[in-house]
Amino acid sequence: MDQSGNNEIDVATIPPCCLKAQAFSPNAVLEANCHATVVSGWFSEHQNSSDDKRMYFNNPMWPGEAHSLEVKEILFKERSKFQEVLVFESATYRKVLVLDGILQLTERDEFAYQEMIAHLPLCSIKSPKNVLVVGGGDGGVLREVARHSSVELIDICEIDQMVIDVSKIFFPDLAVGFEDPRVHLHVEDALEFIKRVPKGKYDAIIVDSSDPVGPAQDLVEKPFFEMIANALRPGGVLCNMAESMWLHTHLINNMMSACREVFKGSVHYAWANVPTYPSGVIGFILCSTEGPPVDFRNPVNPIEKLEGALEHEREPRFYNSQIHRAAFALPSFVKKQVSCL
Amino acid sequence: MDQSGNNEIDVATIPPCCLKAQAFSPNAVLEANCHATVVSGWFSEHQNSSDDKRMYFNNPMWPGEAHSLEVKEILFKERSKFQEVLVFESATYRKVLVLDGILQLTERDEFAYQEMIAHLPLCSIKSPKNVLVVGGGDGGVLREVARHSSVELIDICEIDQMVIDVSKIFFPDLAVGFEDPRVHLHVEDALEFIKRVPKGKYDAIIVDSSDPVGPAQDLVEKPFFEMIANALRPGGVLCNMAESMWLHTHLINNMMSACREVFKGSVHYAWANVPTYPSGVIGFILCSTEGPPVDFRNPVNPIEKLEGALEHEREPRFYNSQIHRAAFALPSFVKKQVSCL
Repeated sequence: MDQSGNNEIDVATIPPCCLKAQAFSPNAVLEANCHATVVSGWFSEHQNSSDDKRMYFNNPMWPGEAHSLEVKEILFKERSKFQEVLVFESATYRKVLVLDGILQLTERDEFAYQEMIAHLPLCSIKSPKNVLVVGGGDGGVLREVARHSSVELIDICEIDQMVIDVSKIFFPDLAVGFEDPRVHLHVEDALEFIKRVPKGKYDAIIVDSSDPVGPAQDLVEKPFFEMIANALRPGGVLCNMAESMWLHTHLINNMMSACREVFKGSVHYAWANVPTYPSGVIGFILCSTEGPPVDFRNPVNPIEKLEGALEHEREPRFYNSQIHRAAFALPSFVKKQVSCL
Repeated sequence: MDQSGNNEIDVATIPPCCLKAQAFSPNAVLEANCHATVVSGWFSEHQNSSDDKRMYFNNPMWPGEAHSLEVKEILFKERSKFQEVLVFESATYRKVLVLDGILQLTERDEFAYQEMIAHLPLCSIKSPKNVLVVGGGDGGVLREVARHSSVELIDICEIDQMVIDVSKIFFPDLAVGFEDPRVHLHVEDALEFIKRVPKGKYDAIIVDSSDPVGPAQDLVEKPFFEMIANALRPGGVLCNMAESMWLHTHLINNMMSACREVFKGSVHYAWANVPTYPSGVIGFILCSTEGPPVDFRNPVNPIEKLEGALEHEREPRFYNSQIHRAAFALPSFVKKQVSCL
């Protein structure tokens, strides 16, 4: 209701998906405005504000556009201690995981993201042994890390137990990652976990966080990168999810300059095409600590030569060594706008 | 109205954008169902059927998903002899051109497509002189071809005069391409035009068609490719728009195998990331006729060395030689699904 007591909705703030509701019931838009994330047929990305419980349909991370998926069935919807967790069966992208209104993965294209964020760092160094995954509670990154037979330890630090539980129920092809005996699960805040990590413990750290709003906010700041660098061995590598080069050059610039200050080896930006992410891409920042030099652009540990990597459960579907090298080719506007590439 | 005479709408067929209408007026959805392409606030892609004048919101080219743009103002909407032409000012992607309900370009990201479809072929051969553009009535490809100072003749064959006129009014940054004195405009069916072309006339042909529904249907069939090959000199090149590797592998397979039969030089698939196209990508088939071999993957005519290419109007914003090489790196699933790569 507006201040005058009418039931009129501010149409400018209602997303396409929710308007679908009106075709069923005149109250549906109101209900939609009261925190329903999928209404009668289509899901569109939006964002819940934790402050005032209102819904922002014009997501501030990508204003003026929306990608919508047709919904066959809502399978799960609950608020965890940290965020709203939603799972639905879509009409054409199979099952979909949504956190706080933001699409995290679909079963149809998840492999592109999981394979790239795992193999870009792990194929850039010889024989990685100790790996830390931050976030990634769905298990998909674990599944990919496990392809590397040199790896002896896979720590994962995920803040939200509900994401893990939901993934084990609804996304078995991802949660299979948890079954590897090398995996050790730590359910806690990554900042607290990394503080306790002995200096130089890991060969590689993969930060599979959600967007830097909500629980992942601290994971794009310099203090976090300093802790990461401390937890890596000399010449160890970080791969950090780094948004869309079309939409978030300001944020990418900030992350890159923080990383340049912290990581004294190399710092690079790479990207992959993932259809269901905004603008169809997702970026990665790849950094190495001072020590043996790392040339991220030329995989020294090619997946095609890894024993068992191509047979583990199923072949990689997106990543290969050509795609690895190509991921570092940046459009001219990105080179211009991201000053510290 | 349904058969019972009620005003009830089949909700399953109504797209997100049109439901927005209901918030304004109970009749708006009905109006939307009667051929309005943008209704009160948001545009979503759909397709008009020329047979029964109904609107299909679940576009058969990408069922179960929709990308929507917030509309600030509709600037033009008219039916040409061939298709419905719509121009609107969007909230965050500047001006947008839509043909038969399918987004053709936005001013914010058009350069990625135009630069790639023009420079992938033209930077793959030395000193291109005679170039034919099929479609491309917006002028953007002409603008890019004109960067090549070796080019002496640019023929363009566009079927729809309205696209050209609309572009000159609303998209001056694209239509600028028509101002180059080397450009010769032919407004007619490309199949008729190419029939009359003397054998071996062109060094390069660029097919900037719309999706293979409506006027562009014939442009993905073998007879068309045979005429193209005939119009090219030995070792001449074709670059043909070729859909999304995530959504249309069947169509890509068909086009690739037709091209393999016709073009006896090399045949390759490349792709680029264009945010406002379905799944965030667009593909290109690159072919060369028998003659001096063409290695598409390594530009022999790099744009960075072309005299004046980087100063013409403005610098390229997407294309560079690294992006050129990277465009041919294909995800593993594409290599597997497109059998004749």
